[in-house]
Amino acid sequence: MPTVTVTRRLTFNAAHRVHNPDLSDLENARLFGKCNNPNWHGHNYILEVSVRGSIEEKTGYVLDLARLKEVVAEEVIDKIDHRNLNLDVDFMRDVIPTTENLAVGIWRILVKALAPAQLVLIRLWETENNRVEYAGE
Amino acid sequence: MPTVTVTRRLTFNAAHRVHNPDLSDLENARLFGKCNNPNWHGHNYILEVSVRGSIEEKTGYVLDLARLKEVVAEEVIDKIDHRNLNLDVDFMRDVIPTTENLAVGIWRILVKALAPAQLVLIRLWETENNRVEYAGE
Amino acid sequence: MPTVTVTRRLTFNAAHRVHNPDLSDLENARLFGKCNNPNWHGHNYILEVSVRGSIEEKTGYVLDLARLKEVVAEEVIDKIDHRNLNLDVDFMRDVIPTTENLAVGIWRILVKALAPAQLVLIRLWETENNRVEYAGE
Amino acid sequence: MPTVTVTRRLTFNAAHRVHNPDLSDLENARLFGKCNNPNWHGHNYILEVSVRGSIEEKTGYVLDLARLKEVVAEEVIDKIDHRNLNLDVDFMRDVIPTTENLAVGIWRILVKALAPAQLVLIRLWETENNRVEYAGE
Amino acid sequence: MPTVTVTRRLTFNAAHRVHNPDLSDLENARLFGKCNNPNWHGHNYILEVSVRGSIEEKTGYVLDLARLKEVVAEEVIDKIDHRNLNLDVDFMRDVIPTTENLAVGIWRILVKALAPAQLVLIRLWETENNRVEYAGE
Amino acid sequence: MPTVTVTRRLTFNAAHRVHNPDLSDLENARLFGKCNNPNWHGHNYILEVSVRGSIEEKTGYVLDLARLKEVVAEEVIDKIDHRNLNLDVDFMRDVIPTTENLAVGIWRILVKALAPAQLVLIRLWETENNRVEYAGE
Repeated sequence: MPTVTVTRRLTFNAAHRVHNPDLSDLENARLFGKCNNPNWHGHNYILEVSVRGSIEEKTGYVLDLARLKEVVAEEVIDKIDHRNLNLDVDFMRDVIPTTENLAVGIWRILVKALAPAQLVLIRLWETENNRVEYAGE
Repeated sequence: MPTVTVTRRLTFNAAHRVHNPDLSDLENARLFGKCNNPNWHGHNYILEVSVRGSIEEKTGYVLDLARLKEVVAEEVIDKIDHRNLNLDVDFMRDVIPTTENLAVGIWRILVKALAPAQLVLIRLWETENNRVEYAGE
Repeated sequence: MPTVTVTRRLTFNAAHRVHNPDLSDLENARLFGKCNNPNWHGHNYILEVSVRGSIEEKTGYVLDLARLKEVVAEEVIDKIDHRNLNLDVDFMRDVIPTTENLAVGIWRILVKALAPAQLVLIRLWETENNRVEYAGE
Repeated sequence: MPTVTVTRRLTFNAAHRVHNPDLSDLENARLFGKCNNPNWHGHNYILEVSVRGSIEEKTGYVLDLARLKEVVAEEVIDKIDHRNLNLDVDFMRDVIPTTENLAVGIWRILVKALAPAQLVLIRLWETENNRVEYAGE
Repeated sequence: MPTVTVTRRLTFNAAHRVHNPDLSDLENARLFGKCNNPNWHGHNYILEVSVRGSIEEKTGYVLDLARLKEVVAEEVIDKIDHRNLNLDVDFMRDVIPTTENLAVGIWRILVKALAPAQLVLIRLWETENNRVEYAGE
Repeated sequence: MPTVTVTRRLTFNAAHRVHNPDLSDLENARLFGKCNNPNWHGHNYILEVSVRGSIEEKTGYVLDLARLKEVVAEEVIDKIDHRNLNLDVDFMRDVIPTTENLAVGIWRILVKALAPAQLVLIRLWETENNRVEYAGE
């Protein structure tokens, strides 16, 4: 059967502060500018989760996207939507909450939660102009 | 000369908490749900500012949109972008920072800052699914 | 308190056939072209529901958009999503299922279901290039 | 029968120079900045044409949008698509080719070409951030 | 000459029913939920066709995208636009009309019709949240 | 540290004429159709620049996207925005100004300007329906 990549798009919104607690306030301000505002700011994030596999003859699906959505909602969205990425999210506790680190954190959860389906890409938009992609490398 | 409405789109992002300090925590949670998270959440807002007037023969413009952008950036965006709407924004001090109240606050600043040009509409998206419009009434 | 218009966007998809059963097949084909395919075709519709009112001081809302979404989902989306507009939808029984008639049908349901909130506009996209607006007139 | 507004979206692209031939080069540069480049620049324009009327019982349409598209394509798009708005377009000959003047020019053609259907709005985007609306006033 | 990938976007809309005729109605309902509605539902699909090759010095093109559009319109869009994917489409006769199988079917037609140009990706959106990609594997 | 791809989106608009000066007018008209208009036409281009690298532990960034934006603005956007791609742009002097050649030209500038950061993809939309991708091959 042909091998296809299927992608589900979900959205969430969250507050964060780009801040490295090991550096001085001055150094943080210099590195991160307005993204370092101590009173936080926030975003509407767009998340795309891509899974690759062969089409199952019985269903015509690689993976039921309704099921994919449920897993991502339970394992990821429920933990970060309407939350503070610095304060409220277990899996972001030890990293600076940039889009890069958030994408890696989401990958690490979903690569297990979706197995044996094969996660191949996490794509995450912070704004309409900025996005990151992580493929597990 | 014909009368035309011109619109400029700008974006900003901010943190907020939908919270009424005159009510109990329980009542706030009941009214506002996850939007009441004490650790904040945030959005990428999209703002559209519409001005109406007759076309100036000399320029073919109702109003130079580059100038409109500058005024909105200085008077509004610089005060709310990468900020906390509850803590950092003077003109939101006495209201709950909903999209409705934010649109009204922006109107009140711009109706003066843009005069004698005639502001006719503020349109503000909080997410791709929710927006408000205010026309000064 | 200021008077504001708030809008909620929802999506659904459906099959339909643009067909007038009082006319001959030839006349239907001439009037509606490929939209008259007897085996149906379909669309991802985008629906915007706009309600207008004064901001409530206690909440900063005209109307809780989460509640608006629930009402529209129960009263409209659940009846038309993944359905056939000609065969499956009670409120479309006696009209040709054009976007115009669908918008009017949705208005008639929501103007009652949302009262005393004041419905002011139904905007409905059939494709990215075609949309209709109905304001109850 | 209910009165509905139907809208068709079309796109075209064109070159132009925002320039007033009655003014000096210096004054043109001061007024129009980079939009005054003597070697032209250009845009992908998005045009929305809105017509209002009662739903015809026989068709369920206010106006067949396929027919609306044909009229706009013949009367407007064919004259401006892949053209220079300063040099190639008859109906823009005596005005500065701003989005405002272009919207008015399109209105004047379509209000006749679409009669007796009632044209109610021309909405024209020059970029994703700038647009104008003209309603015949 | 440099090797570039060029992509053309086209749209179509169609009705379908996700249904496996070898399974019971009960099993179909369990597997496919509302997508199994016997009266059909439908979508506005977005199709992207990507071709890869070296830039031709004479034209500056990998492939004239106007020609690419014509081939895709003739070979694919004309056969599926405003159609029922279960009933009206020859190349979908023996498979369940999921987005996965539709993308594979489109690939098999275009890989021949576009040769010697090298088709490298079919990307197909069923809704704004769901898409699939097929690269011939 | 994980290896991530980060992408920044920027826009510009320009005029151009698809024309090969080594061919006759007749041959140019035949090859390029309306894109060969001697009075030019133009586009709102969308440019995406993708850089790949490991996340820096100190910042959580692969590369500060604000810095990436500055480099692209200075090295590319300032040279092509509101310009004529045939007449005004040094790095397009010897090629036909197709989207393919423009993407290659932008790559050649940025691969040097961004080093040692690793440029991995230039994606360039000429219209909402046409785009090209170049990865340096």
